[in-house]
Amino acid sequence: MSRIVLGPNQYGKAEVRLVRIDRSTDRHTITDLNVTTQLRGDFESCHTEGDNHHVVATDTQKNTVYAFARDGIGAPEDFLLRLAGHFVGGFDWVSGAEMSAQQFSWERIPLAEGGGHDHSFVRTGQEVRTAQVEAVHGETVVAAGLADCTVLKSTGSEFHGFPRDRYTTLEETSDRILATSVTATWRYTGTDHDYDALYAGVRDTLLTTFADRHSLALQQTIFEMGKAVLERYGEVAEVSLSCPNKHHFLVDLEPFGLDNPGEVFYAADRPYGLIQATVLRESG
Amino acid sequence: MSRIVLGPNQYGKAEVRLVRIDRSTDRHTITDLNVTTQLRGDFESCHTEGDNHHVVATDTQKNTVYAFARDGIGAPEDFLLRLAGHFVGGFDWVSGAEMSAQQFSWERIPLAEGGGHDHSFVRTGQEVRTAQVEAVHGETVVAAGLADCTVLKSTGSEFHGFPRDRYTTLEETSDRILATSVTATWRYTGTDHDYDALYAGVRDTLLTTFADRHSLALQQTIFEMGKAVLERYGEVAEVSLSCPNKHHFLVDLEPFGLDNPGEVFYAADRPYGLIQATVLRESG
Amino acid sequence: MSRIVLGPNQYGKAEVRLVRIDRSTDRHTITDLNVTTQLRGDFESCHTEGDNHHVVATDTQKNTVYAFARDGIGAPEDFLLRLAGHFVGGFDWVSGAEMSAQQFSWERIPLAEGGGHDHSFVRTGQEVRTAQVEAVHGETVVAAGLADCTVLKSTGSEFHGFPRDRYTTLEETSDRILATSVTATWRYTGTDHDYDALYAGVRDTLLTTFADRHSLALQQTIFEMGKAVLERYGEVAEVSLSCPNKHHFLVDLEPFGLDNPGEVFYAADRPYGLIQATVLRESG
Amino acid sequence: MSRIVLGPNQYGKAEVRLVRIDRSTDRHTITDLNVTTQLRGDFESCHTEGDNHHVVATDTQKNTVYAFARDGIGAPEDFLLRLAGHFVGGFDWVSGAEMSAQQFSWERIPLAEGGGHDHSFVRTGQEVRTAQVEAVHGETVVAAGLADCTVLKSTGSEFHGFPRDRYTTLEETSDRILATSVTATWRYTGTDHDYDALYAGVRDTLLTTFADRHSLALQQTIFEMGKAVLERYGEVAEVSLSCPNKHHFLVDLEPFGLDNPGEVFYAADRPYGLIQATVLRESG
Repeated sequence: MSRIVLGPNQYGKAEVRLVRIDRSTDRHTITDLNVTTQLRGDFESCHTEGDNHHVVATDTQKNTVYAFARDGIGAPEDFLLRLAGHFVGGFDWVSGAEMSAQQFSWERIPLAEGGGHDHSFVRTGQEVRTAQVEAVHGETVVAAGLADCTVLKSTGSEFHGFPRDRYTTLEETSDRILATSVTATWRYTGTDHDYDALYAGVRDTLLTTFADRHSLALQQTIFEMGKAVLERYGEVAEVSLSCPNKHHFLVDLEPFGLDNPGEVFYAADRPYGLIQATVLRESG
Repeated sequence: MSRIVLGPNQYGKAEVRLVRIDRSTDRHTITDLNVTTQLRGDFESCHTEGDNHHVVATDTQKNTVYAFARDGIGAPEDFLLRLAGHFVGGFDWVSGAEMSAQQFSWERIPLAEGGGHDHSFVRTGQEVRTAQVEAVHGETVVAAGLADCTVLKSTGSEFHGFPRDRYTTLEETSDRILATSVTATWRYTGTDHDYDALYAGVRDTLLTTFADRHSLALQQTIFEMGKAVLERYGEVAEVSLSCPNKHHFLVDLEPFGLDNPGEVFYAADRPYGLIQATVLRESG
Repeated sequence: MSRIVLGPNQYGKAEVRLVRIDRSTDRHTITDLNVTTQLRGDFESCHTEGDNHHVVATDTQKNTVYAFARDGIGAPEDFLLRLAGHFVGGFDWVSGAEMSAQQFSWERIPLAEGGGHDHSFVRTGQEVRTAQVEAVHGETVVAAGLADCTVLKSTGSEFHGFPRDRYTTLEETSDRILATSVTATWRYTGTDHDYDALYAGVRDTLLTTFADRHSLALQQTIFEMGKAVLERYGEVAEVSLSCPNKHHFLVDLEPFGLDNPGEVFYAADRPYGLIQATVLRESG
Repeated sequence: MSRIVLGPNQYGKAEVRLVRIDRSTDRHTITDLNVTTQLRGDFESCHTEGDNHHVVATDTQKNTVYAFARDGIGAPEDFLLRLAGHFVGGFDWVSGAEMSAQQFSWERIPLAEGGGHDHSFVRTGQEVRTAQVEAVHGETVVAAGLADCTVLKSTGSEFHGFPRDRYTTLEETSDRILATSVTATWRYTGTDHDYDALYAGVRDTLLTTFADRHSLALQQTIFEMGKAVLERYGEVAEVSLSCPNKHHFLVDLEPFGLDNPGEVFYAADRPYGLIQATVLRESG
């Protein structure tokens, strides 16, 4: 019988909640992150013998996150690049690192006189910006994304022409609500970018493409969203989208003697369609 | 031994997810509600004998919500008033009703040319608007509120002068982060108001008061928030606030040879302070 | 215009996660609580002036919870009684306290040789035991409960005879699945009880009554559950139950040429029926 | 510039909540699943042109799940194998399928006379059994797992010997609480097994190994858990474990004049260690 061995493994500290206030002027800014660090490398003796002499403690990883924040954070991608460089460069036996973060956004509380308050903020959106840096064998890949961005088209969406088999009962429709919660991740070529500007641009492209295009299928919409990003941003190598089809069912009001011309809907929780695709540049 | 009897009771349908699209013009509007209906009255024989001849089925209540939405929704308070009137007026044995709703907000997806898209929307905020109508014995009370509105002051908050006993270790501070997730409910006098305008005004008052006032305690901040609402809006009889103190702890960076002048914080989950108060007008 | 004043208020520390290991023998026991403390009394100047000299810091309250746990916890009700006594007795201006806790249950990891492991445990159930002590004006009330206890009857449940109006489409049924997640709270007379034994007994009574009784309505089932507790336990003054009707809809398989004699169901999330009732002893 | 093309993609229906009652005798049994179907194949024209003639509607996939349940479910792995076979075999352009399920467990409500009730059940555990069938290019892989299985050792766990750098503040310990919520997935060789028996055996092996072995690091514990499964079950090709280190911090009671010999702990939420490893058989 073959020997039992350790396969792929990684470890680190998950969900380090880091809030940084920039107080360099009286007009504060806030950066709100949830950081996860994961290290790869030679950790075999820890697994097989409980020998920890290679194990950079997850508590140490957490401390490092906070200490590095002292010098400022900047774009989350840049912060993660600094962290990845530290861990991969600082310990001989650490050959890879995956640093990731969620960023929560805040806006200034608006004032009657305009401009927003100097040091009082309100959380905006359920939406979360994501960033990921993966360093493996000297190669570093930066990815960005957004999650929980819920969008809806109240018209401009059809679904028909699908095959009908013994189990098909769905009626075709030429006008339905299309709603989804976009989770998107896009991979950059290179590691030196203005990540904040790119994030804003890619997000805007995803949203306006969703808004503008007539939809014959959520798959089509997703593909067009990814394609638009790749067309506009040469820095982006590929875009992956995962989108639940959040069904809104037209309520049958006929039993109550009422029509329902696309006005009253039931927003269902489960089950939901789940559509996932990657859009990328043809190689070769 | 005394007889065992039925005490206070109510029942209904919870979390009816209702999305209504107004398509009267090509510029659609969306109303997104989560409605809960609860009826009170003479339901004793159902409890004691399983006799359902008084039990307006919760499924019927749900149908009623959807059917009423066919005629439009308007402010959630007005929609709930119509529902409460229907249930209390339509069944002799129904003597009271508590109708409540959460409203989720959407904004138009912005377009380069301005103005926002006609029929494509993006969910805004984690924040939820709440409304409640309670009809009992011919009296109807309307309340409104907001929940999960997360705000933060990066300075302008102190906490000191509290008593010290055997179990006190907290240090006094003259500069801390103050963060909370505001849950507020306010009760209106009367039932005939422009609820959307009032909601916007009260919300704005709560936020700007939080922003503007220097804080010596979260209790003080809450009281001032409620007081400002009552001063500005004669239609509001009382305001109740429930606010977790979402602690942001300054990270001790000294072990790493770094200072931390109010810049790097750990945002804690649990435990949290929980401060609750009602602010009202003196009677008599 | 009338003066604006402070109404009912309370504050404290919420969700203090306390795990206590009893290591008095090698056969450890574990107590796992989530404790919330709330104080009432004269806290007016804190609200109106930010004067904290009466404000027992919520951090101090948390410390007190941990310090009191050093001497052992026992039943959660007894632990909360000690805490309530400390806060109400220790500070002149504290006139009331509401201490509450959730208790999470663990069982020993079973061993081949029987008996369960000495110091290794596995969490059981989603179900949570709850306890609450309210001390006001020298009177102390103890309540206990359970939450998130999900039960289901696959037959023995009917629902018919309900009124039909314009909005009624539900068909009558003489055999349906009845499923709910029981949240129950019961108030004790007196404060000196074997709370662990009572909890086990009341829980068992609730479950076996749910199991044994044929149901004509969830209301009837709830009433019988509460009644059975009151009949069996003289120490219990009243029982409140809040039970969602977790609908399980029979799937229509006819389009696929199949019958469905009560076998295949869709478990819905929302909306759900919500049935709430208190059962108590007749006074006088 | 290179052409933009469709990369890896899949779609289907997620979280089909299926409850099946076996009523073949009066002693009912219940199977409670959350099923997700995902198809792969030639769906390019749907993405690029909105042409749905290959798109087996997710609604059809849901219907198929319910219809297949009419004939009984059995082990979730066997049910998923039937579904995968149907989708891959039934449509020329479907070349792959990933079927997955969560199974929720119920036990009979215990009766005084023993044996448990015939048709009344109570949900057990937070823990979820998982199953996954992946069919690609004629090859079918079955995996099983469990999630949210929370375990704790109150002693028998040490952590020391880790490297100390500028950012290390953690003290070494020879006695700590070790707690985690096990998410495990194991891949079977072949597709014809008694999956229910294997699940019970693997789960038992994971738990007893966690309980029995002294721990010098969570990594070591995880490796031993996986290794024990592989040693005992030749049908298992590899085991992947993902385990948060759910920190329980000893509370410092010294400021209150109390010692704390491993008795009073604070159970932290975030951050947490996150340890992931695969254990497998050496190839070749």
